[in-house]
Amino acid sequence: MAELRKDPVLGRWVIIATERVRRPADFRAPRVPGRPGPCALCAGHEHETPPEVLAYRDPPGGPANGPGWRVRVVPNKFPALRIEHDLERRGHGLYDLMTGVGAHEVVIESPDHDQRLGDLPLAAIEDVLRAYRDRTLDLQRDARFRSIVIFKRHGTRRGPYTGHPTSEILAAPILPLVLGEELHQARTYHDFRERCLFCDILQQEDEERARVVAAGPHVLAFAPFAARVAFETWILPRRHGAAFEAASPEEHQDLARVLRTVLRKLDRSLADPPFQLLVHSAPVGEGDSPSYHWHVEILPQLGWAARVEAVSGLPSNPMPPEDAARFLRDMPD
Amino acid sequence: MAELRKDPVLGRWVIIATERVRRPADFRAPRVPGRPGPCALCAGHEHETPPEVLAYRDPPGGPANGPGWRVRVVPNKFPALRIEHDLERRGHGLYDLMTGVGAHEVVIESPDHDQRLGDLPLAAIEDVLRAYRDRTLDLQRDARFRSIVIFKRHGTRRGPYTGHPTSEILAAPILPLVLGEELHQARTYHDFRERCLFCDILQQEDEERARVVAAGPHVLAFAPFAARVAFETWILPRRHGAAFEAASPEEHQDLARVLRTVLRKLDRSLADPPFQLLVHSAPVGEGDSPSYHWHVEILPQLGWAARVEAVSGLPSNPMPPEDAARFLRDMPD
Repeated sequence: MAELRKDPVLGRWVIIATERVRRPADFRAPRVPGRPGPCALCAGHEHETPPEVLAYRDPPGGPANGPGWRVRVVPNKFPALRIEHDLERRGHGLYDLMTGVGAHEVVIESPDHDQRLGDLPLAAIEDVLRAYRDRTLDLQRDARFRSIVIFKRHGTRRGPYTGHPTSEILAAPILPLVLGEELHQARTYHDFRERCLFCDILQQEDEERARVVAAGPHVLAFAPFAARVAFETWILPRRHGAAFEAASPEEHQDLARVLRTVLRKLDRSLADPPFQLLVHSAPVGEGDSPSYHWHVEILPQLGWAARVEAVSGLPSNPMPPEDAARFLRDMPD
Repeated sequence: MAELRKDPVLGRWVIIATERVRRPADFRAPRVPGRPGPCALCAGHEHETPPEVLAYRDPPGGPANGPGWRVRVVPNKFPALRIEHDLERRGHGLYDLMTGVGAHEVVIESPDHDQRLGDLPLAAIEDVLRAYRDRTLDLQRDARFRSIVIFKRHGTRRGPYTGHPTSEILAAPILPLVLGEELHQARTYHDFRERCLFCDILQQEDEERARVVAAGPHVLAFAPFAARVAFETWILPRRHGAAFEAASPEEHQDLARVLRTVLRKLDRSLADPPFQLLVHSAPVGEGDSPSYHWHVEILPQLGWAARVEAVSGLPSNPMPPEDAARFLRDMPD
């Protein structure tokens, strides 16, 4: 008998199959390998990318666009949005449009082509998160942008992709639909209860333990109650805060440690699964929101039963989050 | 320079690339072939499916679950939701859940394994739409259901799939998120303007012509202004009506004709592309809504630039809908 569970953050119901217990091996899928290196993102190929907008070097202060960097951020060569141009809004009959102003940057997570984020040393993952923060703080100064979206795609079930470990940052004058929905639901909950929805979720997950994947002093990783896909995992800071970039250094360090743990557990459980990672953070200028709460969502892309959701809009998850969390908890990292 | 266009129906912004004109051939992709027939859905294999819930036979009145049918509807063998059980709602801490009650049916569009919906004779496509309507009217009598979702997936970029031409019907005690969003936006527009949003869209598209793909006396097919994917096409009835199943026989006939035209144009332009089709219709009991307007959305699955959207929630479409519509308009069907 399936169960319908409501995602309190998106206000959306999810079909959770509970009929038979599946094991992680049921979800393993052949994966398209990345292109072999070296590529334009590798150390020594700095001249093949647009000039960097940020880099952390050893020793600090080395010349830009040369080797010696640990993490490097460059503009996307084929950006979805462009930084030049003014932001202009206009109508077209009943329709609304604006110029495609934005920034689209690539965070090169390692100089080494064959590294994966979860395999990097802890200090390197901290560097990646610091790059997310530093670029967000810089891009936020541009009054044209409403949201700075940080996301990562690891692997793919259809090729080709470069194979070099990267994240992306998209600054845009608009809100992604999912963030708008979350903000709305969180505000509604806060109006009703005078508490933060995510703080309440955190407390229930921490007490109940059934869906906890990994815990740190500052953040908690768990499978959400209405997980949309098998092995979906969220990481929430314990302290209320709406903006990722405003978290404390201790919170970012703990996030790095728990993120590494989660990625390594997913890797061992599912044999290097493709996954998406999205940092959910308040829109520009709403970092003080009492109702929103930044967090990180990791969605493995296992391709199982995604069919019904993709077409009908009704997500259907074959793996109860309690089972997924138990598998991941018990898996060494 | 890309353009940001707002989808007035979902209230969501879409990035539309306008930098260089692409041709349909740029979007053609290798497709996973369906399994060869015969399969359990073929004529003569009726005993391999669950007993039918509807069939149209020549001559009418032949015995159930035998051959001689033109269109046949059977329960899904592996349903996402099940019809048995009462609908029970309960809480779990701050979470909400209910029993996974629902119906999940398969519309077998042809007895012939190797047919495709767009290649069927017009009368056969009318039969398929009639089956959608007849099953919806029957399922709506079940007071547990809030929505009857009709969708179709043709082909895939990753296998395997049966290859037999089918649609699916999902009856559920919940609304798909996308339908909830549409209802909300349409109601807001109606509150403001005292007119139906979709009626206004229809009038603008009919006058402007730039995005029209095919027109009939009762329905209009066009590329939506803020198309999320290349060659996205909507078919709207000209007369206001919230519920698909309440359309007139003339409207359903014209829908069959224009749907056939659109599918054949897509087939010729894109070499039998995978696509999704979703019937957008009012929830059960809201068929009289002055603000909602039933329609059909066809989304080719071309896998091009879907990457940014899938992760960040910002849809990015490489093909301006005006160009897509012109290509399709000019293509013989």
